This record gives sequence, C-alpha cells and structure tokens, in this order.
Amino acid sequence: MGFAMAELLLAQGHQLFVYNRAHEKAQPLHEAGARIAGTPFDAAREAEVVISMLADDTAVEAVTFGAAGILAALQPNAVHVSCSTISVALSDRLAAAHAEAGLGYVAAPVFGRPEAAVAKKLWLLAAGKAADVERALPALEALGRGVTRLGETASVANLVKLTGNVFIASMIESLGEAFALTRKAGVAPELFLELFKNVFGQGSLILENYASQVARDRYEPAGFKAKLGLKDLRLALSAADQLEVPLPTASLIRDQLLSAVATGQGDLDWGVIARMAAKRAGL
Amino acid sequence: MGFAMAELLLAQGHQLFVYNRAHEKAQPLHEAGARIAGTPFDAAREAEVVISMLADDTAVEAVTFGAAGILAALQPNAVHVSCSTISVALSDRLAAAHAEAGLGYVAAPVFGRPEAAVAKKLWLLAAGKAADVERALPALEALGRGVTRLGETASVANLVKLTGNVFIASMIESLGEAFALTRKAGVAPELFLELFKNVFGQGSLILENYASQVARDRYEPAGFKAKLGLKDLRLALSAADQLEVPLPTASLIRDQLLSAVATGQGDLDWGVIARMAAKRAGL
Amino acid sequence: MGFAMAELLLAQGHQLFVYNRAHEKAQPLHEAGARIAGTPFDAAREAEVVISMLADDTAVEAVTFGAAGILAALQPNAVHVSCSTISVALSDRLAAAHAEAGLGYVAAPVFGRPEAAVAKKLWLLAAGKAADVERALPALEALGRGVTRLGETASVANLVKLTGNVFIASMIESLGEAFALTRKAGVAPELFLELFKNVFGQGSLILENYASQVARDRYEPAGFKAKLGLKDLRLALSAADQLEVPLPTASLIRDQLLSAVATGQGDLDWGVIARMAAKRAGL
Amino acid sequence: MGFAMAELLLAQGHQLFVYNRAHEKAQPLHEAGARIAGTPFDAAREAEVVISMLADDTAVEAVTFGAAGILAALQPNAVHVSCSTISVALSDRLAAAHAEAGLGYVAAPVFGRPEAAVAKKLWLLAAGKAADVERALPALEALGRGVTRLGETASVANLVKLTGNVFIASMIESLGEAFALTRKAGVAPELFLELFKNVFGQGSLILENYASQVARDRYEPAGFKAKLGLKDLRLALSAADQLEVPLPTASLIRDQLLSAVATGQGDLDWGVIARMAAKRAGL
Repeated sequence: MGFAMAELLLAQGHQLFVYNRAHEKAQPLHEAGARIAGTPFDAAREAEVVISMLADDTAVEAVTFGAAGILAALQPNAVHVSCSTISVALSDRLAAAHAEAGLGYVAAPVFGRPEAAVAKKLWLLAAGKAADVERALPALEALGRGVTRLGETASVANLVKLTGNVFIASMIESLGEAFALTRKAGVAPELFLELFKNVFGQGSLILENYASQVARDRYEPAGFKAKLGLKDLRLALSAADQLEVPLPTASLIRDQLLSAVATGQGDLDWGVIARMAAKRAGL
Repeated sequence: MGFAMAELLLAQGHQLFVYNRAHEKAQPLHEAGARIAGTPFDAAREAEVVISMLADDTAVEAVTFGAAGILAALQPNAVHVSCSTISVALSDRLAAAHAEAGLGYVAAPVFGRPEAAVAKKLWLLAAGKAADVERALPALEALGRGVTRLGETASVANLVKLTGNVFIASMIESLGEAFALTRKAGVAPELFLELFKNVFGQGSLILENYASQVARDRYEPAGFKAKLGLKDLRLALSAADQLEVPLPTASLIRDQLLSAVATGQGDLDWGVIARMAAKRAGL
Repeated sequence: MGFAMAELLLAQGHQLFVYNRAHEKAQPLHEAGARIAGTPFDAAREAEVVISMLADDTAVEAVTFGAAGILAALQPNAVHVSCSTISVALSDRLAAAHAEAGLGYVAAPVFGRPEAAVAKKLWLLAAGKAADVERALPALEALGRGVTRLGETASVANLVKLTGNVFIASMIESLGEAFALTRKAGVAPELFLELFKNVFGQGSLILENYASQVARDRYEPAGFKAKLGLKDLRLALSAADQLEVPLPTASLIRDQLLSAVATGQGDLDWGVIARMAAKRAGL
Repeated sequence: MGFAMAELLLAQGHQLFVYNRAHEKAQPLHEAGARIAGTPFDAAREAEVVISMLADDTAVEAVTFGAAGILAALQPNAVHVSCSTISVALSDRLAAAHAEAGLGYVAAPVFGRPEAAVAKKLWLLAAGKAADVERALPALEALGRGVTRLGETASVANLVKLTGNVFIASMIESLGEAFALTRKAGVAPELFLELFKNVFGQGSLILENYASQVARDRYEPAGFKAKLGLKDLRLALSAADQLEVPLPTASLIRDQLLSAVATGQGDLDWGVIARMAAKRAGL
C-alpha cells in the first residue's frame, strides 16, 4: 500500500524520502525519483510532511517512538500524517506526544485496497488540529479521490476507519449467511451472485438510501413497516430452520424487530432498528 | 405496488382485468384501459396469466383458495404468478394445489419499492415448472428491468426473496451500529453519511466484490487476512466499549474471526467467515 | 418415562390400563397388575383419568385425534392429562377439542429424567380448568415430589416446561464456554469441575438467590453493581480473546451491561440485566 | 469484604496489621486486636503474608507499586496474596514483579459475597509457585470453607474467577429471559420463582450433572438427544415469538443445536453444544 502511495506522490511531483524495513522493496521508487532513507529518522528529518502507513500499533509505535524514529527527527512545524489502521488509544497517545514536542499530527486512515491506491481511488479521512490538517491536505488529496475531514480529535478518524472495517465484516457475515441459505435450498452460488449483483451491486441505491434514513433518524411515514419486516424475518428463519441453516445475524435482527413491535414501534419503518442501536448506547 | 405494476402492463399493451379489495383504488386503472373485476374469481376466469401481489400469507390464501378465489376460476393451462412475499410453506402448498388442478403456478417475488415499480426498475425472480415460467415471462419482463430464473421449485424464489430482505435488515442493523458508534464519538450523522456514501454508496464495488469471493469460496491468496480483520474488530470493540456503545453484530463477527484464527485459518482472507457460515449449516 | 410413571401408579394402588405402541414393552407392567390395551382407544374408554406421555406433537396428535384415539374413547367427565413436552399451539388445540367434546384436559408436563421418575422425584406442572385439575391431582401427586399449578390456561404449563428446557440448554452453553476457556488456560476439566461443584453445585444458593431477585425485580441496594459486573465481563472477554476462545454468551451479556451503564443504570445491581430482558419484551 | 476477612483471621488467632484507605473503617478491627497501619507499606513491612482485597486493577496497582506500596515494603520470602478480582494481565505483571524482587505472589480470588465471608463460607482459589502457595495456605484456609489449587501460573486463578463471574451473569440473563417469557404468558413471577426453586434450586443436581458431562466430554449414550433439544428450542422460540418476547440466548443455543443436527450430531446428547464451544476455540 505504501508503495502505491509513494508512486502517486512522485507522479504528482512531490519530493520523497522513502523508508521501508525491507530496503529492497523501496528500490523501484528510487528509480522513480525518490531518495531512499536508511531509517525512519533519516526519512523524516528534513520533511515538512511525513506519511506513515504500517501494519499495526506495534509497527507505528516502533517507527514513531523508536530511537531512530520519526518523533525525534521532525523539524518544528512538520506534520506526521498517520495513515495506518491503528487503535484509538495509540492515536490519542500519538496526538499527545506530537503536541508536547511542538509537532503536527494528523490521523488519516484510508479506505481502499492497494489496487485502489494505484488507481488513485482511495478515500481518505483526516482529523487533527485544523492547521495540521491544512498542511497535510495537498499530500492527502494527491493520494486519493477525496478526503473527509473529521474534526480536531485525531483519533476520531481512526475510530471511523475501524467502524468502516466492522461494516465490511458485517457484510461478509451477512453474505455468508445468505449464500449458505440459498445454496442449501439448491440455488447455485453463481446464480445467486448474479442476482445479488443486480439487486445490491454497483448502481444500487438500497444501502445509500437506508444510510440516509438512519442519518436523518426518521422512521415515519414507513416505507416498510417494522411489523412487516418482522414477518419476513420470521418466514426466513422458519425456512432456514427447515433447511438446518443457522442465521445468527438474522436471529439478532428478528429480536430487534420483535422488541420494536413489543414496545409499540411496529408501525414505524423497519429502519427503526437503527434507532434502537442508538438507544442501547444511551443516545 | 400492485397499482404500479398494473400501470406498467397497460402501458405496454397488455389487456387487464383488475381486482382490488378497495374497489375505488382500482378506478384510475379503469380510466387507463383496464376492466375492473368485482372478485378475484371474476378477474381470473378469462385470464391466461393471473398476477397476484398481496400483503401476506393470509391474503394470498384468501384470494387463492377462497370461494370466489383464483384457483376455482382459472381455465386449464392458465398460470398464476404469485409476486407476494410469502412463506416457503405456503408457496409449496400453492404449487401442489395448482398442479393438482392442472394449472400453472410461478413464484415471482420482486425486489424494489413502489417507486421502483413505477420506473420499471423492479428486479423479478421466477421459479416454477419451465413451461409455466415461459408463459409468465412476457408479463414478468414487462414489470421490471430483469428476471432471474431460479429453477423448477417455485418456493425457492420465495426463499431467495426472504433472504434478500434479511440481507437488507442486516445492513440496517450494521448501519445503526456504525452511526451509533461514530455519533457517540462526536461525528455528526450527516458527515458520516457523506463519507459513507463516498465509500460504500452507489458506485462502490466493495459489496459486489465480497459477494463474488463468497460465491467462489476462495480465500487464498488473502487480500486482507482474517488475523488482521480480527485485530480491527478488537480495536473497534475496544473503542466502542470505552464509548459505551454495544455492537452486537461486531461481537458476533469478532467471535467468528477469533474462531477462524483459533482453528488455523488466520492467514486466509477474512472472507472466510462466510465459509464458516456454510460449515455451520453442514455444507 | 411412561413406564416408570405407570409403575409408580401401580405401586400406589391405582388401577391401570396401559397402551404402548411397542406392546412388548408394556408386558412387565402386566405382571405388576396393569391391564394391557391394544389401542389408545381401549386404554381410554373406561378411564376416569387418561395420562399420555409421548415424544412430540405428532405422536400426541396421533394418539389423541386418531381413529382409535383418546378423544373418541373418553367417557363424559373423564380427564386427559397430557404430560408430553409439546407446543403451545397443540396444547391450545387439545384444550379446545376436549372442551368441545365435553371432556377434561390438563397439561401436566414434568421436570426430571426417567431415573428421577423411578425415584418419584419428578416435579409436575398442572394447568387447565380448576375442576379438571382437581380430578387429575391424585394421579399427579402420585407421580412426583410436587405439583405447581399454573392456572386455567392449559398451554401455559407447556410454555413453562419449554422455558425450563431453554434454561437447561442455556446452562449447558454457559458451561461449555466456561470449560473451554479454563481448559485453554491449562486448567484440567476435572479440576474445574471439582471447583464448579463446590461453588455452583448442589447446596449452592447462588442461582436461587438471583432468581428471587429477578422475581422481586429489585436492584437496589446493589450487592454487586452493574458497572463492576461490566468490568469483570470486560476482563474475562479480554482474557478469552488472548486465549482465542469465543464466548458468545459472555459477549451478549457484556452488551447488556454496557447498555445498562450507558443508560444510567450502572449503580444498580447487575441483576438489572434481567429487567432489561423484560423491557425488551415490552414489560 | 476485607473487613469480614480480617475478622475471621483475628478470630482464629492470626496477628494482623490492617490498612484501609478510609482509616475509620478499620477502627473496629483495632478493638478486635488488629494493629492499624497508616499506609500499605506499614501494613506490609513486617508481615510474612500480606493479603490484599481491593476493588479493581487500579487500586491493586496503587497499593502494590505505589511509593508507599506493598512491593517496596515486603521482607524477603514474604508472600503477597492477592484476593482481588483483577485482570489476567495485571496478575501476570504482579507475578513477574514479585519474582524479580525475590518475593512470593499468590493469586487467590474468592467466590462469595461479604455475607458469606462473615460466615466463613467463601470458596478460595490459589495459584502461584508451590512454595508460595504453601506459605499462604493457612491464611487461605482460615478465610473460607475450602481452597482449590490451580497450579503455578498465578493468573490462571484470576481467569477462573472471572469465568465464574461470567457464569453467574449468564445465569442472570437466562433467568431474565425465563421470567420475561413466563410473565408475559401470565405466570406471576412469585409462582414461577417457587417452581424454579423446586426444580433448579438448592438441592438440584441438574447443573452439577451437566457440568460432569461437559468435563467428561461424553455425549453418548444420549440422555436427551440434540435433535429433541432442538425441537424444544424451536417450540419455545415459536411461543416467545407469539408473545413478542425476544430470547437472544435461546436463539444462540437454537443455532448451536441446529448446527449440531446439520453436521450429523443430532443423535448425541444435547450436552454436545458444550463440545461445540470447545471446537470453536480450536480445542
């Protein structure tokens, strides 16, 4: 991922010092115009903006706080842009450590896989002090098709990135249950896939529309009532039971809809299960 | 919904007898060229194809098996196309009853809301005996942008429709959890929505790509390893815990990923949680 | 089970007609004084009280409604005591059918396995019209160590029996998670069992005390606060995560406690998770 | 809790230095013969065995590692017995710190509430180096009705204590679901409580018997087959659905039983759901 990002920056005329633990991996970037640094310290010490993209908390800690790390190297007013998917706790710690050292810090995790990075199709988040984010923006904009700014608390960007990954994982689980159920009913996976793409794939507005509804938190008038949704969940679980296919997510949602109906919300749109998720959190 | 479907058929030159329990609702269709029937029996008795679109099992039973119902009215070789979202059990019963009476029966539930129907953007399923489906196809094709044929067992189409609704409900629950979490972290819902649309909205291939992976059931080489997914779920749940936001779906998936790692599948793509859903079902 | 019940009744001087599908199984009861009937009808036609104990709904339907069944055989004022674990729906149907025929019907499912029956240690439920239950009581009291009367709606007894079985299954799941976790931490199952018996086994009041608290629905003053319970669930889940042991029940409860704290109930006794279960049901 | 433990030790002739953050709370112990210390350091510096019983990780860290803490005070060969319910991670850290300082450390969490402590009815765990546990044993035996030794890794005792608390919480959730369901069916909570005590209360062997089965991991011959258990869970969930009572634990278990049947284990005893919990953990 880091490689693709470096290529993009070079291609757009940015000057780059590159550091990678496996030095040989950085070699092609040298040929494309980057200077290669032997340590994170060397890569960072003359930079206005340092971008780190690493595997996990441990790697980010090592590269930032280590003896030959970024924190010790940065010039006053330089900004460390952390693109890694890391914990909220570490991001808070990084924000505090950079602030204390008079350095800028922006959390800027990205959505998209390396293939998307190559095509400049990443979507980036950015959170941190406004002045820091301003300085980081040209680099961030060079890295993808857009940036969403998420305010002054850097770790909020990390939380949002993690939320996005949880959402993807939820979709995989739901897909798993859907394919298992239809496959056991005799539908070939390829056929179900074709149908799925036609209904839910690229071009579908279903997900977007429900997201809009949840953002507005309005469930009247109902496009599809919770009590009808409950009916369908019951029918699906009953059919799955006959076919001996456990559907844990479906059971969980049936319980939400059942509770919605039991507490007098059956005539609201079934999007109300999102409101119930908020209420459970004390919102 | 039925109204929009009737309009589409009329607009495309089909001759229509229309029955609705609330007769006045059908009146505008009369002006558009349909004849209005006083009972389901009257609507059905001269028809080659009867399309029923009703709220639930009870309504379909009444309209089909009742004294003035469809089953008693149909001419030999006529086909009953049932577009309602009903139970697998009732669809099986309908198939048997029509077969016994020498009549055709096609289960043809639809994806899309009334607005989509108006714009001829529904997606239709069709299952039943091949000859029956053939006779129903012109009407079905007039009703939407495409039809997926699902074989000879009519109720499979109903199961697939229910599966789709479960999938939508899963997305709402996941959206609810995502908005609750980010909102409690201080992100305005509108801002999260904007980001969400950019990453997961219309135009995104994420869902489609994961669906393809699940259909292929191939998790090597890994685009994103299960053990890294587990890491992210842990970080998200930890942050949610701090913010006091329960994420039941996320916990469920964390458990799947934990089990994937515990059973030696941590280096596979995290799509493997879909395979685990299949294994739990004995597939 | 039926065999043990029959022996108990004979031993206490009751006169018995016995029917079992496998006639030879009833033979020893003949030697103990019972008369053997060739059909349910023959067993029932002279009886004041008929007791049925069968495997499932299907068997009870056959023996009750069949051509040679109980319903056709019973004398006016005779009572059918149904001890089988059957559905609420079938029990309602049985109640209606017996009432219509002028016959008594008591739902009397039992807690305990065959070994307990032999030792007269079953616990019995009884629901139905008061007069019916009165006539059934001598037989029920002969069958176990006690009877709980559950009012006039027979199927309530069936629901309560099913609830008890769900409770047992919950304990097994919780035991499974506890043994898996401790075993993976290196504790021999036998050792954990010994400890478990000392803390939770016969003689322990823990379960009884919590049941009393839930029945009273009083969570103040707190013996153990929800927020401390949340702390322990977090620590347990964290340790389980390290050991790669999924604990779905623990996650579910962590979410309840998290929601309790998020909604301002953290200082109540952690028994409040039972109140939340009631609220979800609209109580 | 600490107060009751101190009283027990004094009553059995142990010499005690007592420290409590709220000094006045310790006063009655002074009258019973204890000497009162102004700091943890003072309480610990002459002791052979120091027992700490505190609210959480933070308190234990403060009292142990603080400037006036236990670790700095202890004489060589003295043993710190930590009875608090703390994290596995902190217990590991305590074990390492004490070992490094040449001091003994025993994790000895307890089961039971303060009332049980007063009556010497606590049950204690003990884990740590054998020699340390030996030195701690007289004190531990003075504190309750028994001690289970859990080997040389101290933190295993903490894990087992947490597991016990998870088990209790699971029972509360299951009780909550059971009372909600029966209450909504019209059964008075007091009546269900009475029944519950008779079937599952003190004197019942049900829990103990299932624990033994799980410890043995033997599910043949079946006392109650998984497929029959599945039948009962289905019937219970169906009845709960009618009454609009969500039963998340029951749904979770239904899924386990469904998977058991789908994977060919339906004829095993339903205790097999415990084995499935172990398998998910890679055991």
